[in-house]
Amino acid sequence: MTIDKTEILFGFHSVYEALRAAKRQFEVVFISSKRSAGRADKVILLAEKRGIKLQYTDPKQLDALTQFAPHQGIVAKASSFPTKKATQILPLLAKRETPYSILVIESIEDPHNLGALIRTALCAEVDYIMIPKDRSCPPSSTVSRSSAGAMEHADIFMITNTASILRDLKEHGAWISGLDADGSSDLYGSDLTGNIVLVIGGEHKGIRPGVKKECDFVLSIPISGKINSLNASVAGGIAMYEAKRQRSIHISKGK
Amino acid sequence: MTIDKTEILFGFHSVYEALRAAKRQFEVVFISSKRSAGRADKVILLAEKRGIKLQYTDPKQLDALTQFAPHQGIVAKASSFPTKKATQILPLLAKRETPYSILVIESIEDPHNLGALIRTALCAEVDYIMIPKDRSCPPSSTVSRSSAGAMEHADIFMITNTASILRDLKEHGAWISGLDADGSSDLYGSDLTGNIVLVIGGEHKGIRPGVKKECDFVLSIPISGKINSLNASVAGGIAMYEAKRQRSIHISKGK
Repeated sequence: MTIDKTEILFGFHSVYEALRAAKRQFEVVFISSKRSAGRADKVILLAEKRGIKLQYTDPKQLDALTQFAPHQGIVAKASSFPTKKATQILPLLAKRETPYSILVIESIEDPHNLGALIRTALCAEVDYIMIPKDRSCPPSSTVSRSSAGAMEHADIFMITNTASILRDLKEHGAWISGLDADGSSDLYGSDLTGNIVLVIGGEHKGIRPGVKKECDFVLSIPISGKINSLNASVAGGIAMYEAKRQRSIHISKGK
Repeated sequence: MTIDKTEILFGFHSVYEALRAAKRQFEVVFISSKRSAGRADKVILLAEKRGIKLQYTDPKQLDALTQFAPHQGIVAKASSFPTKKATQILPLLAKRETPYSILVIESIEDPHNLGALIRTALCAEVDYIMIPKDRSCPPSSTVSRSSAGAMEHADIFMITNTASILRDLKEHGAWISGLDADGSSDLYGSDLTGNIVLVIGGEHKGIRPGVKKECDFVLSIPISGKINSLNASVAGGIAMYEAKRQRSIHISKGK
């Protein structure tokens, strides 16, 4: 099969989850000819089941193919990760009967942070993930690997204008909450049980003023001691899980 | 000044926090001769105040000195990070009048995860950090940088035998709680307000059976959906902050 726009996936989790999620088209799955039995077999089984071409390849060729990325002897050539346009989220929200949560990643530069945020979002029952087209690293194969393959299962919406989509979301009944070191609302004192949008800023500059203006409130995580900031993916994880904690209490109370 | 065992610190946060914390001896601070004004000035000011030799250096020399680590034009040659022996923690605990919390990092391999865990521990009011001598990456300059310099302020105790020190801690009134994907105690249903030791396992294999045996309970973070694990530093961050949340409610209730 020939696919228009392909990319190279690498590492067990990324390739395995991409096969499981079945959102991409696969041209070929490469398996190191020197692999030891184990996880590669799970990949082989899934690829065979889906009728995808398997190619046993010298590990040095895999090094070249992945430009020495940590591929663990498992590599695939597949179509780019399919994303949606930001506005495509609106009809989905209109149909929802239960509260939703959305993660808006404003401008994360480090693909490892982006991967960790996407991975956490999936674990924390965040319904939708939105990433700006131009101000963040894209959902690349490096991000997929950093997310331990979680990205392959995510619904990712690409934003052209963050402030504008936040206004649209507000009209669809969402509360916009930023997360910023200088936020005035304590994370643990804020109600995160409704339709909630969590906006996470960049590693260095936080949330841009034009975007912060659209936030209904700006959350901060209480920090003690001599250090005044958390890693961006850890901070995002703490906030998403506090929302998950509140939401599950809310549900168990039958509200 | 000549120091017996030196290492190369790099990056603004790492060098700046090391100067602030004053736990290391400095041989020299190198500043890129092509630096632009800004953060370097804060480093220069602190170094001058402490009478430390400053050397303006060609950025290429800094690349060579740091083996192309991301040094941001700020590098220092300083004594190794001072750590303590695990057993040195016991007299400190005996003296405490308020509940303490300890983070035991069992076997983290990735220095970026270790750095992020140490950074979060400091922000979350964890009192002491313990790291096994042989089973985890050491508190190196890479870890210092990954912690955004937080490591420089930390009290780190090096463990020779994890199971044995956990038994000692139990005798000093601590509850040992592991954190593991297969733990049977829900993080949010567990009381984390007393003297608590949080044991975090390795990225791949979690907590070793011999160490898990010493845990009074094993916590797990509720995870939903198609992905069944969180990044180690994110999981640790969520657990440390849940403990912090519970402890501050506990205090505010005047218990």
